[in-house]
Formats: sequence, structure tokens, C-alpha cells
Amino acid sequence: MRIPKHIGIIPDGNRRWAKENGMKKEEGYDYGLMPGLRLLREARKYGIEEITYYGFTVDNCKRPKEQLIAFSKACVDAVKMIENEDVSLLVIGNTKSSAFPTELLPYTHRVDNNEKIKVNFLVNYGWKWDLENGLCSKEISRIDMIIRWGGMCRLSGFLPVQSVYSDIYIIRELWPDFQEEQLKGALEWYQKQDVTLGG
Amino acid sequence: MRIPKHIGIIPDGNRRWAKENGMKKEEGYDYGLMPGLRLLREARKYGIEEITYYGFTVDNCKRPKEQLIAFSKACVDAVKMIENEDVSLLVIGNTKSSAFPTELLPYTHRVDNNEKIKVNFLVNYGWKWDLENGLCSKEISRIDMIIRWGGMCRLSGFLPVQSVYSDIYIIRELWPDFQEEQLKGALEWYQKQDVTLGG
Repeated sequence: MRIPKHIGIIPDGNRRWAKENGMKKEEGYDYGLMPGLRLLREARKYGIEEITYYGFTVDNCKRPKEQLIAFSKACVDAVKMIENEDVSLLVIGNTKSSAFPTELLPYTHRVDNNEKIKVNFLVNYGWKWDLENGLCSKEISRIDMIIRWGGMCRLSGFLPVQSVYSDIYIIRELWPDFQEEQLKGALEWYQKQDVTLGG
Repeated sequence: MRIPKHIGIIPDGNRRWAKENGMKKEEGYDYGLMPGLRLLREARKYGIEEITYYGFTVDNCKRPKEQLIAFSKACVDAVKMIENEDVSLLVIGNTKSSAFPTELLPYTHRVDNNEKIKVNFLVNYGWKWDLENGLCSKEISRIDMIIRWGGMCRLSGFLPVQSVYSDIYIIRELWPDFQEEQLKGALEWYQKQDVTLGG
């Protein structure tokens, strides 16, 4: 099996999931934590070397304040949870804005360890911020496959440079409904894509 | 009907189509010309205001020479054909490299005319070239929907900045098999996507 070295994860659908389950929109984010952990553990089994999670963006910060508080807290909790998983962590985002959670400042420089799976979180990330400052995300490598939950087929500003050649796989189910089988499905689909890198 | 202002066209599959039809790979490009013209005429009926065609890229130039000659000629022919369609034309690409067809140099500055549909061709385009020179493509506006023929779900270096929020619609059929119904299908699908611009 041809395994992508680096997968990007767009965990969309937390708010729709909350509404469908009779909760307030902002209550959905917490249900995205365990899926993130389970996906990491599953990806590790396949030998995937790097994962980048789309946490939240500068654009997202235009949402109502209660959502902002909730997704920011969920990102902090996710990083602290995954820190215990024997990974090489990196948080990338605009640290100069007040929307960046100060709890995550210690994670903005990678402690390199080639034996460990790399896990990157985009937190208060902005594609404009990234590009206009000489590629702030340059420590993040090219992405082979992007998996997006929640049915939309778009990048929503996710790492434009690292995504130029990525195969994009869309899962209709919402992110809190993550199942290990979905990653398997994505990898099976990936077998049928040829890697040309634009050539 | 909610009509995208600007659509991007990735006309993939010419070489596969040629092989399937018993021709040499490089013979497929010519069969992509009429589809381009028919798509333009159909898009105009819907009131689409801008179309960007992915011609060929710097990456593509690594292909065998007979293919390079063929897709370069097809791009020149396409531009000259579409010039007669009462459009506001623009060709964007790295004009400083020898792979840029000199016949297209006169089209690299737009003669603006707000009443006409804008048609952009990317010719000898490179995403790195674009980004590293302060966005060479800045005259091209944000893209609402990208339609890709040939079944792959990826951008292959297509205008990374203008594509950050684009909805991407994939058509399984190869580009020379273009049918007007496919554009209709894309627009119907587009109705079901909500425009959040990352928010």
C-alpha cells in the first residue's frame, strides 16, 4: 500500500453536529477532541509520518464570541491531549494577535525528533498572514492528501502552498462522527491517484 | 439561481482521451479547443462574469518535447479562437522563459472593458513563480468555483491565492468529452454550497 507521508485534516462539521444533536453550536467543538486522538493513533498504525490539523483561523474569529471561546479552548485541550502521545508537536499561527491562546505559546517551536510522528496544529492561522510574512508555515512539509469531513469540497484557506499538489478526499459525515473506517477509505482512494506533482 | 462570478477551469484528461481513442498522447490537446469555446458560450448564457482556463504550467514543461509543442500550440490556437468571441482577454504566465509562446505576448495586458466577460488563460504558469514575484496573477480575481475534468480532486498548482475559498467540483469525464450538461450540473451543485469565505 502506498502511504501518504503527510496528511492534512480539515475537521469540519462540529457546529452542524451540535445542532443535529440538540445542542448549541459552540458545544460541538468538544466532541472533536476524541476523534483527533483516535485519528492520530490510527494514522500511526499505517506509518503516516506527519499530520496537520486545521484548528481555527483568523477568518473564524469573526464568529460569535461564545464560539470563539469554545473552539479556542478545544484547540488548547487537543494540543495538551496529543502532547502525551509521543509525538513531535508544532503549533503554527499568528501569535501576535490576542486571539492566539497563550497556553499554546510553548508549542510554537518544534523539538525535532526524527523518530516521532510529526503533528502540526494550525491555531489562529491565516493564509494571508502566512504568505505575506515569507511563508510562516515553512516548517510544515508538502501535503500528500487532505481529508475533509463535513461534505464541502474546498480548502477554506488551509496552507495554500503545502496544498498545491494535494489529493483532496471528502467525507460526507461530520467530524464528531469520525470512524477509523473513514481513514481506511481515504487511503484506499489514495491508491488510485497518481502522483505527478503537477508534471 | 446563485451564479458564481468567476469560475476556474482545469481541463484535464486530454492525453488519457487520446490514448483511449487510439491516438498518440500529444494528439489529444487539439480536441480540447472546441470544448473551451463551447464552455465559454454556455457560461456567458448563465451570466458568469469571469473564466480562468488552466492552459499549461512550468511543471508541465518537463513532459516529452512532442507534448510540449502540442499543448503550447493548442494554447495559442485557443487564445486566438476566443479572441473573436467579444471577451476581455488576459494571458498570465512566465513570459521570461523560452517555453512562453511569443505569439501570446500581445495578450499579457488586459484591455479592460467592464461590459465584456473576462477570460484569463494561464500559459507557462507556475505557482512558485506567481507567489515569489509578489503575486504576478493579481489581476485575476478570487475564484468562486473550480471545475476540474478527468476525475482527480486536486488543484495541481492552480492559482493558490485565488483558490483559497473556491468550491471544487469534479467531473469524471475527460475534458475532450465536455458536454454543456456538465456545466449545468456544476452550477446545480454550487447552489448547495454555502459561501462563508472561511468565516
